[in-house]
Amino acid sequence: MRLESFVQGRWTAPGPDWSGIRSAVTGEVVAEWASGGLAMGEVLDYARRVGGPALRRLTFHERAEMLKRLAAHLGERKEALYRLSHQTGATRTDNLIDVDGGIGTLFVYASKGRRELPNATFLTDGGVEPLSRGGSFVGRHVLTPLRGAAVHINAFNFPCWGLLEKLAPALLAGVPVVTKPATVTAYVAHALVRLIAESGLLPEGALQCVVGSTGDLFDHLTCQDVVSFTGSAETAQILQRHPVVAREAVRFVAERDSLNAAILGPGAEPGSPEFDLFVAEVAREMTVKAGQKCTAIRRALAPRPRVPAVIEAIGARLGQVRIGDPARAEVGMGPVVGLAQRRDVLARVEALRAEAELVHGDPARVAVEGADAERGAFLAPLLLHCPDPLRATRVHALEAFGPVCTVMGYDGLEEAAHLANRGEGSLVASLYTHDPEAAAALVFGVGAYHGRLLVLDRDCAREQTGHGSPMPHMVHGGPGRAGGGEELGGMRALHHYMQRTALQGSPAMLSRITGSWIKGAPEAVAPQHPFRCHFEELEIGRSFHSAERTITLEDIEHFARFTGDTFYAHMSEEATRGHPFFPGRVAHGYLLLSFAAGLFVDPDPGPVLANYGLDSLRFLKPLRPGEAIRVRLTAKEKSPRNAQYGEVRWDVEIQTGTGETAATYELLTMNAMRG
Amino acid sequence: MRLESFVQGRWTAPGPDWSGIRSAVTGEVVAEWASGGLAMGEVLDYARRVGGPALRRLTFHERAEMLKRLAAHLGERKEALYRLSHQTGATRTDNLIDVDGGIGTLFVYASKGRRELPNATFLTDGGVEPLSRGGSFVGRHVLTPLRGAAVHINAFNFPCWGLLEKLAPALLAGVPVVTKPATVTAYVAHALVRLIAESGLLPEGALQCVVGSTGDLFDHLTCQDVVSFTGSAETAQILQRHPVVAREAVRFVAERDSLNAAILGPGAEPGSPEFDLFVAEVAREMTVKAGQKCTAIRRALAPRPRVPAVIEAIGARLGQVRIGDPARAEVGMGPVVGLAQRRDVLARVEALRAEAELVHGDPARVAVEGADAERGAFLAPLLLHCPDPLRATRVHALEAFGPVCTVMGYDGLEEAAHLANRGEGSLVASLYTHDPEAAAALVFGVGAYHGRLLVLDRDCAREQTGHGSPMPHMVHGGPGRAGGGEELGGMRALHHYMQRTALQGSPAMLSRITGSWIKGAPEAVAPQHPFRCHFEELEIGRSFHSAERTITLEDIEHFARFTGDTFYAHMSEEATRGHPFFPGRVAHGYLLLSFAAGLFVDPDPGPVLANYGLDSLRFLKPLRPGEAIRVRLTAKEKSPRNAQYGEVRWDVEIQTGTGETAATYELLTMNAMRG
Repeated sequence: MRLESFVQGRWTAPGPDWSGIRSAVTGEVVAEWASGGLAMGEVLDYARRVGGPALRRLTFHERAEMLKRLAAHLGERKEALYRLSHQTGATRTDNLIDVDGGIGTLFVYASKGRRELPNATFLTDGGVEPLSRGGSFVGRHVLTPLRGAAVHINAFNFPCWGLLEKLAPALLAGVPVVTKPATVTAYVAHALVRLIAESGLLPEGALQCVVGSTGDLFDHLTCQDVVSFTGSAETAQILQRHPVVAREAVRFVAERDSLNAAILGPGAEPGSPEFDLFVAEVAREMTVKAGQKCTAIRRALAPRPRVPAVIEAIGARLGQVRIGDPARAEVGMGPVVGLAQRRDVLARVEALRAEAELVHGDPARVAVEGADAERGAFLAPLLLHCPDPLRATRVHALEAFGPVCTVMGYDGLEEAAHLANRGEGSLVASLYTHDPEAAAALVFGVGAYHGRLLVLDRDCAREQTGHGSPMPHMVHGGPGRAGGGEELGGMRALHHYMQRTALQGSPAMLSRITGSWIKGAPEAVAPQHPFRCHFEELEIGRSFHSAERTITLEDIEHFARFTGDTFYAHMSEEATRGHPFFPGRVAHGYLLLSFAAGLFVDPDPGPVLANYGLDSLRFLKPLRPGEAIRVRLTAKEKSPRNAQYGEVRWDVEIQTGTGETAATYELLTMNAMRG
Repeated sequence: MRLESFVQGRWTAPGPDWSGIRSAVTGEVVAEWASGGLAMGEVLDYARRVGGPALRRLTFHERAEMLKRLAAHLGERKEALYRLSHQTGATRTDNLIDVDGGIGTLFVYASKGRRELPNATFLTDGGVEPLSRGGSFVGRHVLTPLRGAAVHINAFNFPCWGLLEKLAPALLAGVPVVTKPATVTAYVAHALVRLIAESGLLPEGALQCVVGSTGDLFDHLTCQDVVSFTGSAETAQILQRHPVVAREAVRFVAERDSLNAAILGPGAEPGSPEFDLFVAEVAREMTVKAGQKCTAIRRALAPRPRVPAVIEAIGARLGQVRIGDPARAEVGMGPVVGLAQRRDVLARVEALRAEAELVHGDPARVAVEGADAERGAFLAPLLLHCPDPLRATRVHALEAFGPVCTVMGYDGLEEAAHLANRGEGSLVASLYTHDPEAAAALVFGVGAYHGRLLVLDRDCAREQTGHGSPMPHMVHGGPGRAGGGEELGGMRALHHYMQRTALQGSPAMLSRITGSWIKGAPEAVAPQHPFRCHFEELEIGRSFHSAERTITLEDIEHFARFTGDTFYAHMSEEATRGHPFFPGRVAHGYLLLSFAAGLFVDPDPGPVLANYGLDSLRFLKPLRPGEAIRVRLTAKEKSPRNAQYGEVRWDVEIQTGTGETAATYELLTMNAMRG
């Protein structure tokens, strides 16, 4: 089949010179691709002109809902993707990572977007900053979506996950995507894009897909665009140094090579759960996707005396892995993606052998089930051992992107950390230890060089998600050789597609612009209690000022007896003498809270359905018996939740009779819609 | 005087060819500089080997204290900096921005560091992420200081503020600094570094200063270093495209040219406070630092019919500005930094005149007080008017870095936003309107193109801090032409010098590593109540499980009468019928809180001094009369505050008699040290 590009809302054939893409398994042509013929300036322009405005009209919750439907749509059609993926060398397990992992990422972004973001079109970032003594000038940060396109340049190894894990945060942020799959597995990404396009779930222009070269796309980038690249360090550097990237300060996120380490802790004896975990994880990372993962373990570090046992145990595991036609259930490892890739891996293994000896596997021979070892890009898992890793350089710098790993010994935790950091920046490292002291020493010894660290032990062995699997909740990326970029990390990923802007102005103005009331802004006081307003009618800044109530010594003693809270500071003048905070016997903080509620609550049934929580309570001034309190309650923020009700956040201040602030907090209520 | 570099702990003369730096005022040589002779690899190595470890041994609070002392030390010696700065052309007002502004930034970082950061050596970032169904595998992010150096390349216009505003967050993060001042005003930065070095307040190696060229410094950068550049777009692009930056994924932050706009709102008539503010701000930004600020207003946008009034009013203001010897109190504007700078500004004005006419000031003539107009780099403020800004290109792209601004008219808010965005990314824009609808339209219309936005009106006129003044609390930087970088922004700036790492593991392991107890980690239960532990002795995970207490209908009715909280859901079975959340009459949330305190409080005097607050309270399950509650209280985090006491954060869960979670919150106590 000839792979067309999906641009400007239609499938477009590039042309005219088509080349074949060959099956990793059979070597036969399974698809054809061509380059050229696409006007990249127009592709970007379509994203900016059509896709961007359509996405920005939706709220975060609406975009999250869209991702959820898209995930469900794809989940029902994933078998078609599985079938195509086998041709790339992916086994059934590999498909779980690529296809199901990608769909799962959509679901996580949908769910987190709904729970963690407001039902709005912009975000506030951090709190209000006072910028003046008198309080008439304040600051707050907002995040708004960029007005350009997200250009996603993907690696060949995860045609589905790679596309979807970048797509989800961009769309949720409100930015349209131009995705460019790697050519050698583009037929899988192409099928995925076809499913997405057919779903009709995304607004026009929200996704375009360019098969083949990006042509002159970089010449048309501006400061409103984002390039997110996954692939080799060589290509990443060429793209990052493109003159337009520097000239326009185009955001450039790279995720590239990495010499990730697994470190067996000093106390983990053979036979211990941590030793077994280490061995299983190294073997798994070598064989899943035939080792073609930027997160795979390339360096297995073990205490020097343990090295022989480690080599033996990993070798034994690898010996059990069946290699062959990845569509077969019993096959544990398929071919690498193609013959060129196999040649490249073998050349790098040859280079590594200058510093490391081969201790398992034969580069020239592999036993294959259900496929032709000559025509398919099959390769045996190859384990090496580097005897002098402190002086070696290639084992820390040369990534053989296939089923290849090097075992190396270390003496002491400091040396282990030093060796791990010799990778000069990695996506991930995993530590195998049940000793929290050793774990902490390693974590803080290698943290600055790593984007992700797993500490694996018996406590999490059953449920741990794997060294090589980025989770949508956690950042994926790493410094240095790993590219210096960050992806995923939950809602953090939205920041890559949004501009943070520092807003400065009066409390009144910033309240109105951000929809979040700031102390010092005018309050709207009406005869009607604000708890009688339905969600839609309640205006930000609507306030209630309560009557006053004196707190008597009897109240305090009664409350103490009733609740059982007889803390000495409430019970005895004597016992508080010399207390650093209390001027004598004082009222319970919870008494203040309870009386405050008594002062502001409107008892009859009405739009306020429930008080479901409270945030940031601080007791600022203790109250002595005989002092009075009163309460100010102001509607601070609103976020609709569904057609029936929405959340209201109230700014509450308990004041003393003389007007001092005794306590501040934010009260959360659920308010009914008038509907 | 010959300016030596301060490297590897000593003052080192480069050599041997010295060149003069001339006074902006008199044209006489005031200092000499030379380049070469410094081994930049060794400078970086010294920072990494000596400065980094020394800083990382300190906690954030200790580093904050160090900044505070440094600020005080410099504050007492600032007159010397004032005197030198006059030679750069800086007036007394300019010195307030540069010298006092820089010292003030140190103070703000000291104070925020103390208040907003834990007394620790690393940060946690965001909450705990559940990564497994059973809860045995979770994630959390930490931030640790980079192991390299912060290389600060500064602009000539703010030799003190520029150095200090970059220094403060780097040192607070725990990363040593190599600062390189711009040569033409290096004698001021040199004096500042001398004051810092003499203070003895910074650890050895925490600050080095390179006067002259950076030589081969970039060849030695790694992924653990950060370059933060302020200056021209040309130089920024050359540095950003240095092959080592891409190869090592060196963090590169740029703050460069910007065609910042001021926008007079549609409703602001001449004579209104907003019109006056606009005129005053444009005139001020043109003349402060003789317009040599990357944040200065270069484009003054006004509704087309207002343009003549705007030009007249700004011209009248400019006419009152006295130009001359900046050391004189009555002088409002000094010279630009040198004769070359003046030539450059005049050439750019000439280029702008192809699209805009000069409406105030004469490029060839300027009246100067107390100085020689020929020898000093004096320049009259030059106001231009561009009649067709939609078709013009230079006025949106060409920055004349001096007392120069172009007035342009717009029709409608959309056109105003469009014109502002024609700057293709700016550091800042200011909007002058009292109309929140117009303000919101502009903010969301230009937000994606701007790093900072001021909305100025009558409400904040007296206290507003100025279009051109970055505040340490707010981010400073902007997309596109402005460089794409971010500086300052309070504690956000520390992230530029720290690596975020995703940690994954069991709750027990992550609790131990981060010093923050995670639900699912083991609890330490001892016969002694945890409230009897002094701060030092209290271990993270130490728990208390309370007895049970049944909540009776009488309790609820009594609490309602006592507090006055007679909300219907507590009072009437009838009234709750059909309620979306309540299964009938339920207990007050505050009753649960109060009873919970009664269940866990230890009444006698002891190490717990006070409950000072509560965070993230959520009521998860309403309690019916007759149901029981019990409480689990677990020490979650500790942060020492001073020698007498420290803060303890407790994880609290109120459970029903059947073990369901009724409410969760975090309790804050102040605990005495044993001392």
